[in-house]
This record gives sequence, C-alpha cells and structure tokens, in this order.
Amino acid sequence: MSDLIVGEHRCFDGRLLYCEHQSAVTNCRMRFSLYLPPAAAQGPVPLVTWLSGLTCTEENFTAKAGAYKKASELGLAILAPDTSPRGEGVADDEGYDMGQGAGFYVDSTEAPWKPHFQMYSYITRELRELVLQEFPVDSHKLGIFGHSMGGHGALTIYLKNQDIYKSVSAFAPIVSPMNCPWGHKALGGYIGEDREGWRQYDSCELIQALGEGLHRSKILVDQGLADAFLEEQLKPELFEKACAKVGQKLTLRRHEGYDHGYFFIQTFMDDHLAHHAALLG
Amino acid sequence: MSDLIVGEHRCFDGRLLYCEHQSAVTNCRMRFSLYLPPAAAQGPVPLVTWLSGLTCTEENFTAKAGAYKKASELGLAILAPDTSPRGEGVADDEGYDMGQGAGFYVDSTEAPWKPHFQMYSYITRELRELVLQEFPVDSHKLGIFGHSMGGHGALTIYLKNQDIYKSVSAFAPIVSPMNCPWGHKALGGYIGEDREGWRQYDSCELIQALGEGLHRSKILVDQGLADAFLEEQLKPELFEKACAKVGQKLTLRRHEGYDHGYFFIQTFMDDHLAHHAALLG
Repeated sequence: MSDLIVGEHRCFDGRLLYCEHQSAVTNCRMRFSLYLPPAAAQGPVPLVTWLSGLTCTEENFTAKAGAYKKASELGLAILAPDTSPRGEGVADDEGYDMGQGAGFYVDSTEAPWKPHFQMYSYITRELRELVLQEFPVDSHKLGIFGHSMGGHGALTIYLKNQDIYKSVSAFAPIVSPMNCPWGHKALGGYIGEDREGWRQYDSCELIQALGEGLHRSKILVDQGLADAFLEEQLKPELFEKACAKVGQKLTLRRHEGYDHGYFFIQTFMDDHLAHHAALLG
Repeated sequence: MSDLIVGEHRCFDGRLLYCEHQSAVTNCRMRFSLYLPPAAAQGPVPLVTWLSGLTCTEENFTAKAGAYKKASELGLAILAPDTSPRGEGVADDEGYDMGQGAGFYVDSTEAPWKPHFQMYSYITRELRELVLQEFPVDSHKLGIFGHSMGGHGALTIYLKNQDIYKSVSAFAPIVSPMNCPWGHKALGGYIGEDREGWRQYDSCELIQALGEGLHRSKILVDQGLADAFLEEQLKPELFEKACAKVGQKLTLRRHEGYDHGYFFIQTFMDDHLAHHAALLG
C-alpha cells in the first residue's frame, strides 16, 4: 500500500502499521502507528488520532492501550504519532517534561526549540494530510483523544479545529497548562514568557473564548482519583467550571482507586472508542 | 494484603499486583505479576498461570496481552512469573535463547546453570504454593498457558501435573524441544547432552508416554501462519500427530497472516481465557 510502512502486524483481523516519514514541518524523521480495522479493506473508515503523554513514543498506546479489539469491531482506524521530534540535532532538555518526548502539541516560537518543535502543525496539518492521502480514511469522520499531555493536546486541537475534528475525549488531561508546573515549564520554553501567547494552548481559555454560540460535540473525560498528578498538574475541576460557564456538554467521570497509567487507560478505552464511533457515525 | 507486593494498579475493577520474593528454589529474588479480578474480593477464584517466551519478564504479558478485561468479566486470576532467575551471580549466555530470560521451565542438572535455573520446580511448587497461601485463589481450579517457550512450559507442566492443573492452552508453542534448535541448545545446556533426559521436557514425548488411558482436558493451541519461527522451531504438526496417536482432544487453529508477537496473542487471548474458565468451572 504505502511506502511509509516499516512494520506490519495482523491484529483482530485488521492491520497494525508502523510508519516512518520525513517531516517538512518538524524537520526530522517522524514515526507513527496506524491501526486499520478490517472494514478499511472495503473503503474509507473513520479515524481517531491518539495523542500520548510525556515520555511516550508511538509505541506506548500501540502496546499497552488494549484498543484494537473494540476498534476492529467498530470499524475505527487509530493513528498514534510520536510525542515530539527526535534525533541528533534536535534540541532537548534534561527533564522528562520538556524537549524530546514532550512536544506538548504546540508550535514553538523560541530558540532552541523552534526549528523542530512544531507538533501542533505537524498533527493538525502535515500528518493528517499524509494519512488521508496514503490510507483509506474518511476525511469527514475524524476524532481526536489523548492522555495527560496528550489529553491537553486533544482538547486544545479539537477546540481550535472543529471544522476538522468532530469528536474529542481525554484521559487525565492537563486541562490548563497556564495553571500547572508542567504547563509553565513547557509553554515558557516553547512559546516564551509572555503569557498572552499561552492562551491559545489552554483548553479552559479556549472554551471560554469560544463562548456559547458554537455547536460543539459532547466531551468525555475520565480521571482516576488515585492519580498522583491530579491536584498539582491536572485539575479537571477547572475544565468542568469552564464548560459549565459556556454551556458545553461534558461527561467528566471520576474513578476511585485508578492511577495515571495505562491500566487506567485500558479500563475505559472501549468507552472512549464507542464515544467517538457514535459521534463520527 | 501480602507483603510481597511492590506495586499495585487498579484495572477493570480488579487489582494488578507486582510482587517480589526471595526464592529458595532459584536461589535469588524473583518477580511476578498477579491480576486479581473483582470477584476475588468475595472469595477464592480460579487461577491461570501464564508462562512467557524467550527474553520476556513478568512485564510483557501484563503490559501487552490485553487480558484483564475478559479476566475481570470471567472472574479469573492470572499469574505471570518472570522467565528465569536473574541478577549478579546468576549464570548467563550471550544469546537471547539461553540463560537469563530463557529458563525454559526445566530443572537444570548441569554447571553453571544448576544453582539457580530450577524454573520447573519454581513454577509448579514454590510459586504456586506461595500464591495459594498469600492470595484468594482456589487450589482446585488451576490452569496454565503460555507463548512460544512458555507454550512448551505450559504443555509439559500440564502433562506432568494433571493432578494440579485442570486446563491448558498455548500460543505458538515449541511443541518438541528435542526437534528444534532452541530446544537443542537449551536442553543440551541445562540438562546435558544425554538426550534420554530430554524426554521429560518434550510435550510430544510426554503425551505419547501417557498413552490412551488417562483422562485429559481438551487442549487449545493457536498458531499464526506468518510466524517466522513456525517451520524451524515450532512445528505444531508434531504435536497434532502425537495427540491423534493417543486420542488426545486438540483444537489447533492455524491463522493466516498472524506472526509470533503480542498482536497475535491479544487477538486470541479472550478465547483462551474462556477455554480455561469453562474447564475450571
């Protein structure tokens, strides 16, 4: 099919593909995984893009999320990109929460990040167009979801691109980078210290700016109550308040005993896939 | 509950535990994972032991098999031990197919392996007794299954211990170590060059030695036809013939396009769990 494919595995009668390409936007080789359900052999299928959290690659979701059985049944394709540009010559940071593995789904304007850290444009434009061109995916049936930093990515990308993405959900998202240490470090580094520029990457700010006028799909968010990052970094109550203020429908489920990891994610994965499938039709 | 627990995650309303203990049999620290379904909070549940393949630890199944949703529904506990003794002072080999990560589920009689490589006794006696003592598991409802080297382990352990294990299944098992390079290297090293001693660790030999008299549960085996190890190492046709000869019921399913990895395993995992749940009652 596509000459991007560097690995392929049969899985629940569908095809799990590992792909690699030269990105003109991030200016380096980029990797992603793509699951095509059996229905994709008959024609274009809906696609949901999964954005992973800090330290992840295109592998974490693929190996650990347990998503492909339900995706096969629902006829959903799932795209899981890497979380940042990588390689020699790409800037990095000693912390796990900045640089390679921590692209934060923004377009950087600052040195030394700007030449490669353009993950917002990479996800919403270059990678999306590439996948639509190379694989049997329906461009009118696109959704987006993610975890932690990737939950932030999914919510902000959705709110800014409702013409492109028709459904959104998140696991333990960073709902307001303007109000947590991870966000302060990332946005301060990638976008600079002028906090006005941060608003475009903060889902609480974005939803308030959108106001009450627009039609928006219901948003699904799951959050574990034993999540070690809940109080300092994630703060779902801020998003809950922002949604309530503008009349955005939100299902925010708080789960006793669940932590921040993939065992939490896999527990509620099927619910998220069903949410997207219902909205994408 | 138990002071063996070094990590715990909530998953599908059950408990996924990482445990560690000092083994008297392998003479070193050993790690395993144990999934306890929600039903275990009410009383003892059936337990299936998963034996992993070459290079694996107690983590591979836990992260990649996608087994816990179905295990939660069926009320099955799943024990996933490491594949060998490990650590400084434990013998090793430069190859991936011998030594640490490659215990082959045998009791070694030869230097330098003998002091630690006693995985057969560790699995069937020490670890089983430890888990029965520490966790709510029904000692009369034990099954065993595994992948590749672990499929060999599951079949041989089951055939030699039908008083203990009531159900067995395997993914892409090494059915006859006496007839493949992996087996020749492992048994030659661990048991010595006298091939008479190898028969006790070869499921084709064992099932023929058991003959037609015994009652044995139906065996389930899944094999991918795009598995790179199929012809040289796995040879399921040898087990098929051996079962036919003695009237052992075997469901051997050959799957077009599936390879040797965890995407193959997860595709058929629920069928295996249902097989065990049905036999264990």
